[in-house]
Amino acid sequence: MNTPKNDLFLKALQGATLDRPPVWMMRQAGRYLPDFMKLKAKYDFFTRCQTPELAAEITVMPIDQIGTDAAILFSDILVVPQAMGVDVQMKPDIGPWLPNPVRTQADVDRVEVPDVHERLHYVMDGIRHTLERLDNEVPLIGFAGSPWTIFCYMVQGQGSKTFDKAKALCFSEPAVAHQLLQKITDTTIAYLKAKRAAGVHALQLFDSWGGVLSPEDYTTFSWGYSKQIIDALGDEVPVIMFAKGCWYALQEMAQSKVSALGIDWTCTARNARYLTGGKMTLQGNFDPSRLLSPIPEIQKRTRDMIEQFGTTNYIANLGHGILPNIPVDHAKAFVDAVKSYRPRRY
Amino acid sequence: MNTPKNDLFLKALQGATLDRPPVWMMRQAGRYLPDFMKLKAKYDFFTRCQTPELAAEITVMPIDQIGTDAAILFSDILVVPQAMGVDVQMKPDIGPWLPNPVRTQADVDRVEVPDVHERLHYVMDGIRHTLERLDNEVPLIGFAGSPWTIFCYMVQGQGSKTFDKAKALCFSEPAVAHQLLQKITDTTIAYLKAKRAAGVHALQLFDSWGGVLSPEDYTTFSWGYSKQIIDALGDEVPVIMFAKGCWYALQEMAQSKVSALGIDWTCTARNARYLTGGKMTLQGNFDPSRLLSPIPEIQKRTRDMIEQFGTTNYIANLGHGILPNIPVDHAKAFVDAVKSYRPRRY
Repeated sequence: MNTPKNDLFLKALQGATLDRPPVWMMRQAGRYLPDFMKLKAKYDFFTRCQTPELAAEITVMPIDQIGTDAAILFSDILVVPQAMGVDVQMKPDIGPWLPNPVRTQADVDRVEVPDVHERLHYVMDGIRHTLERLDNEVPLIGFAGSPWTIFCYMVQGQGSKTFDKAKALCFSEPAVAHQLLQKITDTTIAYLKAKRAAGVHALQLFDSWGGVLSPEDYTTFSWGYSKQIIDALGDEVPVIMFAKGCWYALQEMAQSKVSALGIDWTCTARNARYLTGGKMTLQGNFDPSRLLSPIPEIQKRTRDMIEQFGTTNYIANLGHGILPNIPVDHAKAFVDAVKSYRPRRY
Repeated sequence: MNTPKNDLFLKALQGATLDRPPVWMMRQAGRYLPDFMKLKAKYDFFTRCQTPELAAEITVMPIDQIGTDAAILFSDILVVPQAMGVDVQMKPDIGPWLPNPVRTQADVDRVEVPDVHERLHYVMDGIRHTLERLDNEVPLIGFAGSPWTIFCYMVQGQGSKTFDKAKALCFSEPAVAHQLLQKITDTTIAYLKAKRAAGVHALQLFDSWGGVLSPEDYTTFSWGYSKQIIDALGDEVPVIMFAKGCWYALQEMAQSKVSALGIDWTCTARNARYLTGGKMTLQGNFDPSRLLSPIPEIQKRTRDMIEQFGTTNYIANLGHGILPNIPVDHAKAFVDAVKSYRPRRY
């Protein structure tokens, strides 16, 4: 595999000393981009995910239009439960909708651990198309949901503030919950190994819903499974773990084979550095809503963020996905502010 | 005002040395109680809030049926925006629904700072009815939403995971946002003073949505306003501040005139004690979903929680409101486990 011409992102994952951090944005290939909205009007959600040419076209959009230092494959975390034989739909105004949620031993028994090369071949094809389109300019990130986050959707059947039904299964029938979590974990390991083999330069695990759990339950029902994935892949490829709302687990996660930890905007750089021991690569943590501020304020806050995290062991990013209502020039102002950053010389 | 016969809750707020902590549950007068559901079937939401006899009947239910050490007046945080002239509806499956959200300077100009004695007299009547029904057995808690949380609903117009529209107003037009926050604050101070005058023994502020803000923005848009309320009332009556998801602000909040801080289940007792300086009264933090565990596990986890927080400077509670799907005997097992707790003698 060739090293991309712009390898700042990979260098940051290795802890190299840098003058300015690399920058990308979670959900950077998404609904704030007018060209994305044109494709969205023409093709439904799963068509976009499952057509390699479309996935590649969407993936490279922010590289060409916003100038980020890394690409992340356009896809969705819910292709995994779909591949496991669970029906996943996208409903307007509701979002993910799983008409047959998994809630009993019999339901869990029916869930498959599929051959990912067969069921998710379109993702690997999308990676190959994207790598061609990227022409070795920037690295490509592949991703998956954490087993806990996938479990949340599979059991709850839709988004939720509390994922009370998912938690109910864990607390009332823990053995059943653990079986399902293990099936998701096994599938995800195979899936991410296939992504790695198809050529992605790094992987990110999204634990979007770890933060609904107590620290003890997070270890039991979420981190234990994410750690299996990191153990299986961390020697081969850099893995970034982003567990939103899980500041309380940063110390534990920092002891693993992860190359970087994602930080959300509720955790200051100082707290994040303290909790992770000061030396590991961190990624984040601009509040996505703060991109609605006037551009000069975005520029100032972005520079402040870099001052606080430092330029080494740091990847500038948002603290969660970019929102659909962010003006493109505001997103670009954020990226440009990182790219034009130079350390203060005292 | 007479001291209630069971004054354990008030003693805990004063930091008295206790053998076992007092216990109550947020939303304890709510949908997990079959008798509440009978009233819910007969009377709509605002009828229940606005009819003093009904509010009193619902408020005393958990005292009689579950045996908690304090009552909290049945009401809703959204009676405040309603009193400020903003239409608030409760829609089945959606929850709070404000058909005319407040999003511009003109909208904010129309929002009233009402005479709370006139517009919210039914709340004070409800307090007087409840105090009669309670017959001085246990103390009565009054509450309000924090200005930030009320602002979230007024601007967003409904519940949300991110309250992106509320944040958008803060970040794109901060002067407009601050005007609205101040109007809510002024109304809330008058409202809580009236509640105090009507006889409640303590107050709790609910900042349910502070956790969507960064630490800096929390100080600016949320805590600054809650602190005004605490400054105005904290010398007269014990005030408990519960800011869900705001672990990062515990240190700052502990410096104020609050009598206690509420803790959610993502913050361990150890972290909470460390962040608040070790000596202040804390309240929480059993994960509401954990009441779905088998009863022996609820008992064990409740005892563990008390061991971790200690029996002094501590009020046992959930880390957020009780969920509608909790069996009554599980809720009672939690309360009984606290009431039968005795410190280990070494």
